Amino acid sequence: MTGFEPRNPDYAAQVSGGFERHSFMALLGVELVRVEPGFCELHLPWRKYLLQQHGYFHGGAIAGLLDSAAGFAAYSLMPADANILTVEYKLNFVAPGTGSRMVARGEVLKPGRTLTVVRADAFAIVEGEEKLCCASQQTLMMLADRHDQKDGEVRAPARAG
Amino acid sequence: MTGFEPRNPDYAAQVSGGFERHSFMALLGVELVRVEPGFCELHLPWRKYLLQQHGYFHGGAIAGLLDSAAGFAAYSLMPADANILTVEYKLNFVAPGTGSRMVARGEVLKPGRTLTVVRADAFAIVEGEEKLCCASQQTLMMLADRHDQKDGEVRAPARAG
Amino acid sequence: MTGFEPRNPDYAAQVSGGFERHSFMALLGVELVRVEPGFCELHLPWRKYLLQQHGYFHGGAIAGLLDSAAGFAAYSLMPADANILTVEYKLNFVAPGTGSRMVARGEVLKPGRTLTVVRADAFAIVEGEEKLCCASQQTLMMLADRHDQKDGEVRAPARAG
Amino acid sequence: MTGFEPRNPDYAAQVSGGFERHSFMALLGVELVRVEPGFCELHLPWRKYLLQQHGYFHGGAIAGLLDSAAGFAAYSLMPADANILTVEYKLNFVAPGTGSRMVARGEVLKPGRTLTVVRADAFAIVEGEEKLCCASQQTLMMLADRHDQKDGEVRAPARAG
Repeated sequence: MTGFEPRNPDYAAQVSGGFERHSFMALLGVELVRVEPGFCELHLPWRKYLLQQHGYFHGGAIAGLLDSAAGFAAYSLMPADANILTVEYKLNFVAPGTGSRMVARGEVLKPGRTLTVVRADAFAIVEGEEKLCCASQQTLMMLADRHDQKDGEVRAPARAG
Repeated sequence: MTGFEPRNPDYAAQVSGGFERHSFMALLGVELVRVEPGFCELHLPWRKYLLQQHGYFHGGAIAGLLDSAAGFAAYSLMPADANILTVEYKLNFVAPGTGSRMVARGEVLKPGRTLTVVRADAFAIVEGEEKLCCASQQTLMMLADRHDQKDGEVRAPARAG
Repeated sequence: MTGFEPRNPDYAAQVSGGFERHSFMALLGVELVRVEPGFCELHLPWRKYLLQQHGYFHGGAIAGLLDSAAGFAAYSLMPADANILTVEYKLNFVAPGTGSRMVARGEVLKPGRTLTVVRADAFAIVEGEEKLCCASQQTLMMLADRHDQKDGEVRAPARAG
Repeated sequence: MTGFEPRNPDYAAQVSGGFERHSFMALLGVELVRVEPGFCELHLPWRKYLLQQHGYFHGGAIAGLLDSAAGFAAYSLMPADANILTVEYKLNFVAPGTGSRMVARGEVLKPGRTLTVVRADAFAIVEGEEKLCCASQQTLMMLADRHDQKDGEVRAPARAG
């Protein structure tokens, strides 16, 4: 329980609908495990295509997982007609990405009218134990007047700034 | 020309060999385009599996690209018996990931005995023009006594700290 | 020459007026040296009250210098009735803060309607040579409807988000 | 209680001794309030020389406070003959620096042989209530063979990398 009040009562459906439209999540094999107001947990099971030269999860795969965990945590607090962009993030890799799966949890630190700040951490599951692998801080921006892309819709580029 | 003197005369082969062992690069479809001492350029052609909900390149795909561009830029300055880990990075997304391909260039800002700091930026190619999409600063750490994983070799986890 | 077009023809006066109202700049002893559209250079002469335990410039003094160099670089592109807040920044300390003065240069990387991204670096002046000491990336937000504090004016807190 | 085991039983004296040698802490007026293994709390009372143009605590003053809170949290876990440098940090300003004092708490997230990662947050005290003002993630590096500067000692520059 995060203590945040969602502005959209259907926040969980909003998040899972957004998740489905991220084809990159399907490419990595990410699973949406839990959504609460201001919180999102994603899992990334080990696959041999997610690795770097030492045989660990590649930093970019972990970054993609944390990017989305933070984005959906923030998105869960947005009104139904809003949309969201990632402004920036910062990752500290504190241990190699070992283990059978990577678990990422994003939690809103400060929701804002325009900007929302989220902390999202990734944990390696090694012999059933969670081990902190990567810690992040992220900033997301609400776009009040945009909608998700529908299939086949051509969109003009939006500006992040 | 970056002005850095490589410690390994075969730095280009070292980098391309390392690149081949990153299975995540193959999953994304990243191409190794140019290596110089302290510099690396990678390309990521548009594919429908690299997208987020607006139809742009997903931030995590851009992060994975920049993670590797910075890592290989730093790796090109390492001695032949060294290895490398990513310590941390910070990304600012300044425009959406539109266009037909994403071009990432990593350039060493400060090589160090233990830590190397790199700036790596990603540009969207839109109608033949480069447009800055994501700017990053990254820290890499040299591991003096490790070697890349050979096929099938089982490795004990290393510590990033 | 930065290539940016200022929205306020009196941008230089706007920046120097803002600089005067930062009492923290006076405490540190910061000098405003150069302003151009999207660019600002500040100097911090060595003083024994700016140091850490090794006798170098304290990281916080360097952070304060870079915070302001980036802020004023962004501020120089704002319209006359706008104001500005720092959203976030990231500093990499690549060499100790030695020497007789610290020179900081902020340069706008991407101006935006709401958010502006700036790179600002600090150089130690050691025997007349510049040596990179700290590299940063920063995000600033324009507040369209606020004015600087006048002397003695009581203000309600603004929200950064 | 942080759960960390200090390598130096006199960690508290080590930290307060280091704090005394930071002249910049005295310039700002920072108070060392609490030290535990892997934890440090610093206070910065309001003074009119710590402000920016809106009359709030200047971001650089908050950065200096958080820089030291994180540094001393990490330092508390170092052996008696070790020293410490700041590698990098990232700050998110989530609310303006209002109130009568700024309280910073640094807590080690991951201690390491070479690198230690710390989270340090600053809270504004407004009418007796704590309000999150700035959230940070920081990396510190242990230098095994260095000692603090003694008064008047001339030191050669160390390299951060």
